[in-house]
Parts: sequence; C-alpha cells; structure tokens
Amino acid sequence: MSIDRAGIDHRPTTSDSHAVDTETVEVRLRSARGNLDECALLHGDKFDWAASAQTTAMEQVHRDAEYDYWRLRVTPPHRRLVYAFRLRAGDDDLWLTEWGFEDAADVAYPTGGAERPLHYFEHPYLNANDVIDPPEWVEEAVFYQIFPDRFENGDPDRTPDDAAEWGEQPTTTNVFGGDLQGVIDRLDYLGELGITALYLTPVFASESNHKYNVADYGRVDPAFGDTATLSRLVDRAHERGIRVILDAVFNHCGRQFAPFQDVVEHGADSPYADWFHVHEFPIRFEPRPTFEAWGFEPHMPKLNTEHPQVRAYLIDVAVEWMEETGVDGWRLDVADEVDHEFWRAFRQAVKAENPDAYVLGEVWHDARPWLRGDQFDATMNYPFTYAVDGFFTEASIDGRAFADRVGRFLFRYPDATNRVLFNLLGSHDTARLRTRCGDDVDRVRVAMLALFTAVGVPCVYYGDEVGMRGGDDPDCRRTMVWDPTERDEALRAYVRELIAVRRERSALTRGDLRFVHDQCGGDLVVYRRTTAGSRDGLTVVINRGDEAATVELDDDWSAASVPSVVVASRDDAVREVDSTRVTVAGVSGVVLEP
Amino acid sequence: MSIDRAGIDHRPTTSDSHAVDTETVEVRLRSARGNLDECALLHGDKFDWAASAQTTAMEQVHRDAEYDYWRLRVTPPHRRLVYAFRLRAGDDDLWLTEWGFEDAADVAYPTGGAERPLHYFEHPYLNANDVIDPPEWVEEAVFYQIFPDRFENGDPDRTPDDAAEWGEQPTTTNVFGGDLQGVIDRLDYLGELGITALYLTPVFASESNHKYNVADYGRVDPAFGDTATLSRLVDRAHERGIRVILDAVFNHCGRQFAPFQDVVEHGADSPYADWFHVHEFPIRFEPRPTFEAWGFEPHMPKLNTEHPQVRAYLIDVAVEWMEETGVDGWRLDVADEVDHEFWRAFRQAVKAENPDAYVLGEVWHDARPWLRGDQFDATMNYPFTYAVDGFFTEASIDGRAFADRVGRFLFRYPDATNRVLFNLLGSHDTARLRTRCGDDVDRVRVAMLALFTAVGVPCVYYGDEVGMRGGDDPDCRRTMVWDPTERDEALRAYVRELIAVRRERSALTRGDLRFVHDQCGGDLVVYRRTTAGSRDGLTVVINRGDEAATVELDDDWSAASVPSVVVASRDDAVREVDSTRVTVAGVSGVVLEP
Repeated sequence: MSIDRAGIDHRPTTSDSHAVDTETVEVRLRSARGNLDECALLHGDKFDWAASAQTTAMEQVHRDAEYDYWRLRVTPPHRRLVYAFRLRAGDDDLWLTEWGFEDAADVAYPTGGAERPLHYFEHPYLNANDVIDPPEWVEEAVFYQIFPDRFENGDPDRTPDDAAEWGEQPTTTNVFGGDLQGVIDRLDYLGELGITALYLTPVFASESNHKYNVADYGRVDPAFGDTATLSRLVDRAHERGIRVILDAVFNHCGRQFAPFQDVVEHGADSPYADWFHVHEFPIRFEPRPTFEAWGFEPHMPKLNTEHPQVRAYLIDVAVEWMEETGVDGWRLDVADEVDHEFWRAFRQAVKAENPDAYVLGEVWHDARPWLRGDQFDATMNYPFTYAVDGFFTEASIDGRAFADRVGRFLFRYPDATNRVLFNLLGSHDTARLRTRCGDDVDRVRVAMLALFTAVGVPCVYYGDEVGMRGGDDPDCRRTMVWDPTERDEALRAYVRELIAVRRERSALTRGDLRFVHDQCGGDLVVYRRTTAGSRDGLTVVINRGDEAATVELDDDWSAASVPSVVVASRDDAVREVDSTRVTVAGVSGVVLEP
Repeated sequence: MSIDRAGIDHRPTTSDSHAVDTETVEVRLRSARGNLDECALLHGDKFDWAASAQTTAMEQVHRDAEYDYWRLRVTPPHRRLVYAFRLRAGDDDLWLTEWGFEDAADVAYPTGGAERPLHYFEHPYLNANDVIDPPEWVEEAVFYQIFPDRFENGDPDRTPDDAAEWGEQPTTTNVFGGDLQGVIDRLDYLGELGITALYLTPVFASESNHKYNVADYGRVDPAFGDTATLSRLVDRAHERGIRVILDAVFNHCGRQFAPFQDVVEHGADSPYADWFHVHEFPIRFEPRPTFEAWGFEPHMPKLNTEHPQVRAYLIDVAVEWMEETGVDGWRLDVADEVDHEFWRAFRQAVKAENPDAYVLGEVWHDARPWLRGDQFDATMNYPFTYAVDGFFTEASIDGRAFADRVGRFLFRYPDATNRVLFNLLGSHDTARLRTRCGDDVDRVRVAMLALFTAVGVPCVYYGDEVGMRGGDDPDCRRTMVWDPTERDEALRAYVRELIAVRRERSALTRGDLRFVHDQCGGDLVVYRRTTAGSRDGLTVVINRGDEAATVELDDDWSAASVPSVVVASRDDAVREVDSTRVTVAGVSGVVLEP
C-alpha cells in the first residue's frame, strides 16, 4: 500500500483551516478512502518552535465513497499556528507541506530547534473577528415556516373581496385571506408544538399571493396587516420565547415597485434607470423582458444591488424593519444572484442593529463563498433535503450513499456553520414531504426523525406536522388545516415529541455526528450524536426498507445495560433491543441512549 | 484505465469558479496526473436549458507531479451558469455533479428539454462587483523596492549626527542618512532603468532604521524628510510615469507610539488600554512582553485592529496620506496576522479614495483567504521566490519540480490576480539574490530572466540590478552603490533590457504561461508565454546546468523559420538555433520568438 497522493487535499481556507474560537484552530485533510494508516499533524508557533512544536494524531471523522475526512483541533500557545502533515500508508511515509510531498526518509523536519519552518502551512493568527460565530439562539431553535396567505385568517376585515374559500385548491393567483393576526392567533398552537422561531415568507405590499414581487418595501401588505400588526406579532411571539425572521426579497422587486414604474414610464430619463439592468429602452415585457429579471419573469425585475443608492435603500429597509418591529433576522431570497459586496454591507448593518440577528441566505448549492463569516450565518440546506429524498422518499440511493453525502456536506463548512444550517424537508418551493413520500406516513415519520437528529436547525413547513398533502407549487401552498378531525393528530404528537427531544439534548443541537459506516448500507442508516469527548450520546437507527432489520451496536458504543428508547418513529418501531443489537421494524427509526 | 475519483477536485469557490469579467466564468478542475482521456463541461442557463445547454471540452493547462489542471472559460447567455463535468478514461465514463459521481451509462442528463438540472454545480450570477479587477497599471508595472535609509542621501541637513559612513557594514541599529530627497534625486536613474513603480519600506516617524515600529503614523520621519518632501517625491515620480506605494505597518506599532506609551504609563486606566492585547498590567517587556507583540518583539506591540477606534484611526492614516501626497497604494506589513474584517474596511476606504490604488499584502503563504476580491489585489509572491531558489540558486529541485510548483501556484488564484502578484527575488527580509547564488552572476542573470518572464509583476530590490551582495538581515540592507566603477554595469544593462522586453510585449504581462512539460526536467525549464488564442508568443528556455543543453522546439510551436532571440542572459547564451531546436550554453537562458 502506498499513499494515493492525488487523493490528498488540504487548502488553507475557511473550511480546511479555521478559527473555532479565539483559542482553537481546526485543521482538516481529505485523503482517498481507506488509503492512510496514519495521519498526524506537526504543529507549533513559528516564533517559538523549539518550545511549542509537537505532533498530534488527527482523527478520521467522516468517510464517503471516495474519501476519508480527517480533523484535528489545536490550541496554539500564542494564537499563531504553522503545521505540516505526516502521512503513512504501508512503507510510504510522507510529509505534506505547502510545497507538496516529501519523503520523510529524505527530510528531517524540525521537531525542536530554532529554525522556523517557513514553508509549512500556516494559520497566521487567531483574531476574534475571524471566528465564525452565528447567534447562539439559532443552534437551539426549531423553526416553522409560514406562508401568511395560507396559515390563518385572523382579521376578516382585511380579507380581499375576491378571496377563495379556505380549503379550496390553490392556483398561482388566488388568495385566501390568511394574515398576520392569524399568526398571532395561532401562537399558542405553535408554542404547544414546541416551535421557537418563525420564518414568514414575504409580508410586504405586493400584488401576488406569495409576495415575492414586492411593490412597496416600506409597507406591510394591507391584506396581511400593518406595521402595528407586525410589531404585535413579534412582541407576542417574543413573549412566548419565539423569534421571528422575515423574507428579504432583494434580488428583484415587483413590477409595481415605484422606481421600476418610473423607468417603465420615463425610460432612460428616469432617475431610477440605473436601479435595474435594462438592456433596451423603452421597457418591454414580451416575448422576453428587455431588462434582467429573475428567471425571465417579467414581474420580477432584477435590482441593481451594485448601485450605491439601491444598496443603501435596501439595507435601510432591513434595518428600519428591525428597529420598528424587533424582527430577529432575515431569510434572503435568491441570495446567490446578488453580489457578494452587497451582502457584506448588509450583514454589517444588520449585525450592528442586532448582533443576534440570524442572516439566512437562500442558496440551494454548495454555499462556501457566502459562509466565510462575512456574509451569511447559514443557508437553506436543500442539499440535505435532496439527500433525504434520495434515501427516504425516492429510495434512489442506499444507506451508504446517504451517509457518504451527508458526511461530505459536514466537511464543507465549519461546525459552527453546520450547527445553524437551515435544514428543511420541504418548503413553498417543493412538493410537500407527505406527497413526496407517496402518502406513506411511516416514511414521513422516519424523514422527520432524520431532520430532528441531523446537524443543523430543523424547520417544519406549516402543516407538514399534521400530514398535509400537496404537489409542486402552487399545490404545496394549500390552506392550513385547523379542523382536528381532518388532521393527523398522531403525527402532530410525534413531531411535538421530536421537538421536545431535540430541545432537551445538547448532543442533538451541539454534538458531533458520526456515521457508523459498517452499519450504513442498503436500507439502513446508523449514526451517533455525541457531545465533545463524551462516549454517551445518542444512537440513531433508521430502516427505510419494508422488512425489519437488525443492527449491531458495536463495542465502542454498546452499554453494559440495554439502551433505552428516546423516541421512535412508531410505537412498534423497536422489535427487540439488548445491549449488543437492536431490531427495527420496516420503515421506522429509533433514537437510543445508554 | 479507470477514473481516479479521489484525485478529482472541484470546489465552487473563487479559484475553481470565478467571474473573469461580467461576461465570462472560468471553471477549473483538477484530476490525477495523466488519468483522464477527456474532460468536458456540460453547461447552460438553468432557466433556459433547452436553448442554452452545450458541451465543451476543457483544456488541460497545467500539470504537476500529482495532478492535471483543466480550465474552461464560458460565456453564459444570461449571466447565469449551471454546469456538470463529463469525465472519460478508458471504459470509464462519469458525470460529476454537486452530488458526486454517476456512471454516464446509468444517467441520461439533459442536453435539451425543459428540466432544470438542480444538482449541477452553479455559478449563480455574473455581477460586476464580483469580478476580480485589480488596477490595470499594475499588470504592466515594473517595481523597484527602496529601503530609504540606504538608497541615497539627498538632504545632508537631515542626516542624523550618529549616521555611519555610506558603505559601512550595516548593523541592526546603525543609520546611514538615506532620505526621500535622495530618492527624488535618483528618479532619473530609475527612469532610465525602466522602472514604473516604487515600493518604499516605511517612511513614518520611528526610532529604528527600518521604521517597522512606527512611533507616529501622522509624520514622515524627520531623518527622511517631511510631508512636503513625500508629496514632492510622488509628484516628481508621477511626472516620469512612476507610481509610488508605501508600507502600511498596521499589525503592530512601535513602543514609542503615543497610545502605547499611555498604556505603559497608566496601565488599565489608559483610554488606550484596549488598543492593544495586554495580558497583564502593568506592562512589562522582559523576559517576554506581557502584551501580544509581533514575534515576541517588545518594541512591536500588536495593535488591536478589531477595536473600532483603532480601525478608524489606521484607515484614516492610509486615506489621509493618499489625499495629502497622492501615493498610489499600500504594501501591508504582516498582513496575515490582522483580521479579515479590518482589511475589508481598509480596502473599501482606500478604493473609495482611489479605485486605482494597489493593495498589496505581505503574506508569504497560499493567500486565498485574502485574494477573493474583498481584501487585497495581490500578495508578495514569496512562494515564487522559494521556487526560484529551489531550482536556480540551491539546485535542490529539478526543472520538472520547478514547473510543477509554479504551475500549481497558477491554479491557486484567478488569472487576474496572478497577473498582479508581486514577484520578487529578494527583499529587505532575505539574503540578496547574488549572495544566494553563491556570487555567480550567470545564475543571477537566469533568475532575473525567470522573474521578468513569469506571470506577475516583477520587483527589483534596490541594488540587485548592479550586483550588490548581502547575507541575511541586516547585511542585505547595505547602502546603494552609486560609484559606477563598483557596480556591475553589464548586469544593469541586462536588467534594463529585460525591463524593456517585458514592457513591450503583452504576452509577458497579460499572456498565459504554459510549461512545455516534455522538456522540463533535470537542469532545464521551458515555457511559453502567449496571448489568448495566439500561437505566436514567446518561448523561454533556461538551463541552470553547467553544460550546454539542447531543447527540441515541438511542432506546435516551431516556426517555419528560425526563431529570433528576444533577449538572452548572456551574449553567448545561444550556441545554436534552428527551426526545430535550440542549444543553450550552461547557466544561461534565452527568450525566443518566431
């Protein structure tokens, strides 16, 4: 066995070398799967090498189809770190420095002595500002996403005359009269479920039912309420310990947005002509808009967020709503199509107003360019949604591929970021979970188990907790079912239990996640959630297959006594359990603890 | 042959996927050396997939010991790009998307049709602000680094009483009376050499000869001149088309800096107590400082650049000097130990004052975290210096390893950044080139040839052009030799010729660099500098060995006629040349063109 050099990767960037806190650097390395016998780090202070240099074994924390992922957390004595990797496989024994590989037999690198190792990798200094430091409350939050027109009608006076009947089939254009007072009225329901944070899709004045084409950023949509209603909603929520974030649609505005209307009217002479990306005056909407628009939608003109006036205007919008109503953060629509400079300025202003604000970007992909600490705290974790779909709802990937993919995701970002990623099983932009599960509630339950035991903040899309159905948009935006006889109340009780379990156990909110790779495969996924340095923690076993399956609880983890069931996806999920193995029914899952 | 999956790497970040301009995305991929037969990109607009999807072959542009490096520049029709890689090796035929590898036999990815490929990689939008866009003048610049105390004494009235005689041996503490008037007096010399930009090490009031421990950021050191002298220097330089950048020492100050003195005096009660990182009051300097300091140096207390007052103070310093004197940019001392937020704010203020200012960080390592467009335009390219040392001055690596290393470096950053990297063969922090070459001027000459034909902006350390000698600091800071009889005037003429060649040929300033890998090895390095799409361009052949060597000019490149010599490191460097090969003397190099 020799070292697969091409498989080794370490880039001294945010994900591979970052400040965990002002005392600790986390160093990561990737190697070809199963290739290395040993991976160690030689590290020390470059100005005090003789006294500080030491070698520490790295820990292999994840593994996927191609790679092993190694990690070490180091506490440099003087906030500075230089380091080199020592890699062994069979007779192969290599150093890896910034210059590349060298045979350890040829090179005697200093482990003492005064020489400064200038070509080592370097994490030059631990500055507090460089620590990725999302708001603490987010780690422990359980979110609930509300599409206001469809949640509850609390103020019939505000219901549009042409509103459809509650319960009718949604179309792309009909409205139902849900409003902010409705959300206030249902805070008890949400509190009882255990929800601690709300994400509301847009609430500002707009002619559509979804309001992603904003006409007036300064005004709550009159069908939803007014500033006072929004303030009251935030106050009432805060009284219950529930935080509220709003949707900032800053990539594009609506066609009725006054500055855009001015450009439609006055063309290049409009003082707002540069607020948009107009290719040709006068503005035309057909066949394709003569201006840049989100997805060619003529009612969604792209804002020129690079224009200083536009930038100042939008950032003021965000800060003023925070000042006026006390909202706790922003979900940023189509965040990835806006320039990075805008988001840096946005973050600074928002965090200056409230350092605890949650800045959540809509990015469906690998989001490293936005998650370096200077822009977003987190992104909507659709890659997790897809992985859940692949394993649980579509069965297009097996348990090993699921573990591979989720493990790889955990190595993209620092753990502090992973802990506040916005995990979701569906949204207003996807078919509903139950429908994706082919109406199989057992499958919904195991997917929920995965959501609440994953790394990242869970979000429940309104109504998923009572088994609402719905295909792609607009069908996934049906009105909330409030009649208990039409709801799956057992599912709701189960979600409440999952929420309670998550909120009670720090291993789920702050702990590491490690897949038990030997047991992941076929219809099975097994992983552990543990807090640092602890052997306690939780074991999650999920069986998506139709037949019961047995999982061995390996020596490292099995307790002397029979583990107890923390929560199970169904009452009969656990067929048998003893100190060495557990048998789980078909399409079910369980969380065990020693 | 199958695909070495572990060797494949693509991370959608600044280096692997970036905006070249507002029309063009550059996509890069790394694969195990020699592994892939084919590497292609399927790409298009996610909202217009049917009309826009196409497959384009990627180009292998570099190769090192472990990897092949592939590149493609794409012009998306609507500023949005999604993409997937199609990889082939032998019978292996794979897709690589953000979800990982899939066998192309199993998956029919759309090359038409309406389906949006949601799990492809994505470059979401080409925003002008996200384009890496360093000042254009830097690409074409030739820098000259001046250590003001040692360059020229132009104003004897300002010479300190205890100044050593010009030409004496420098110590860590002695001063020689060089000053800014001296630089003004020698602008003709520099202009005649072809220099277009000066980098001055610190000029602000400080008790040391190097002035890296600043006592007063608001004042030119009286031994060097005053604000008027500095303004005059900048004006006179500008009249000759020479730009001037200064050294900003913002990581730490000097012991005599008034706020620090206040803390020494008043301890925790000082209003400046938080301007530094004091571990224990009162301040003590021995045995180790009780405050954080650069490299434990008690006369270099680290500034708390995270403190809003300190940040505002230092940024004002930079902007005010730009306003007052018109300096064209800043070299940032120990930039990597300062927090990233500081540099983001610094860049914004400096570029607001002058969008053409050059922001150059001192980072000796892989500097990706600073070179994403939000902080520095460039860094001091010591990794290049080390590669030159390895091949030219120490002969510790062979020609193939040199090509490997330099090729790998070129894949770290976008090309726009590579073109303005500050390439140097030595500085006030290293032994001088001639001394590192064992006093062998032929070796100096080939290293210079490499410097002036590399990608990046060349900088000449004062006196290297006339063959000055000097070991490690302080010996590398000897006084400039102005007596022509003590100078290597032939070397100076050669450097002047190199500068002229570089300034005349855009292939050297803006062109691509490709190593001719078959010819790189042992004592030989061969590479091509070409402008985009051109087969013309320059061929550089360097032989560091003692014996003459012959290089084949491969078919792709050899002209029908005998190539002409653009510049040679010695008059007798070219022994023979015809349309198919060139024979180069020992320790010499040549630039050829068709």
